[in-house]
Amino acid sequence: MAQNDDLKALIRTIPDFPKPGIQFRDITTLLLDADGFATAIARMAAAVPGPIDLVAGIEARGFLFAAALAAPLRAGVLLIRKDGKLPGATIAEDYALEYGQDRIAIHADACAPGARVLLVDDLIATGGTARAAVRLLAKAGAELVQAQFLVDLPDLGGADALRADGVAVASLIAFPGH
Amino acid sequence: MAQNDDLKALIRTIPDFPKPGIQFRDITTLLLDADGFATAIARMAAAVPGPIDLVAGIEARGFLFAAALAAPLRAGVLLIRKDGKLPGATIAEDYALEYGQDRIAIHADACAPGARVLLVDDLIATGGTARAAVRLLAKAGAELVQAQFLVDLPDLGGADALRADGVAVASLIAFPGH
Repeated sequence: MAQNDDLKALIRTIPDFPKPGIQFRDITTLLLDADGFATAIARMAAAVPGPIDLVAGIEARGFLFAAALAAPLRAGVLLIRKDGKLPGATIAEDYALEYGQDRIAIHADACAPGARVLLVDDLIATGGTARAAVRLLAKAGAELVQAQFLVDLPDLGGADALRADGVAVASLIAFPGH
Repeated sequence: MAQNDDLKALIRTIPDFPKPGIQFRDITTLLLDADGFATAIARMAAAVPGPIDLVAGIEARGFLFAAALAAPLRAGVLLIRKDGKLPGATIAEDYALEYGQDRIAIHADACAPGARVLLVDDLIATGGTARAAVRLLAKAGAELVQAQFLVDLPDLGGADALRADGVAVASLIAFPGH
């Protein structure tokens, strides 16, 4: 059995969501499994290469991994939110969607220059949001230690694009194909 | 110093967000503080009265507390999401907003009848969303052990309304007034 196949078996695939032809990799079945979620978090924490000040999670499912990784990494949690959700002064970054664009933001005072940051999300596909998050953290002066994902869809190219941007990328589980 | 005043001091108040007259209690400053967040989670876990199978977090900030409480409570995480976000078959519940209404949902197969559930969110104000979450968990056959919040705005009546619904309610921090 390949490494992490125990966790992969806890992820459910739902065909044609959110639209026909998409195989949606549903991590909610892993989250419901207490041992599975704890194991995933322990393995993600073990894959972080150095000390971390802040775990930055991308709204909304990334919040789950950022919050759960805070204790084992002895780090705080930095929220990367959809624009308009944070109450204080923010810095923001736009990114392209299939149709149109979207914007994510962090509080302008959330990340001290030089803070060692781990970026996390549940899944990386084309990487549009993750790459915008990397640009946002760079604007804030963060030292991005790693970007880590529970699931990678490697054929969609997001992880490779992040590596081409100079980011260290890790993930536990890959689903080849689209 | 009153109990939990150390944590209360980590919460920032932002005036006039999201609209004039609202004092927004911003927990992001507590989340950024590694020791503060760890202490909050330890105290929330200690206030849970019995064994828990699932921690149900309300999108999006409730996800942070559900995920962080999963390890100390040895529980899985159940996502309560805005309608349309979950890929599988769902059960849903409507609730009133100041203008109009909104709908939250869980996966129909997420919660076995009799599962012992802790409901969590960052903050309770008027309690509209939390009460809808309680109805939703009841529909699923859950045994709701407690509803717990980091912050209570007691003068807005949400915690009292939940108690009137027969729910055990706990919170660490209260901000009297509006």
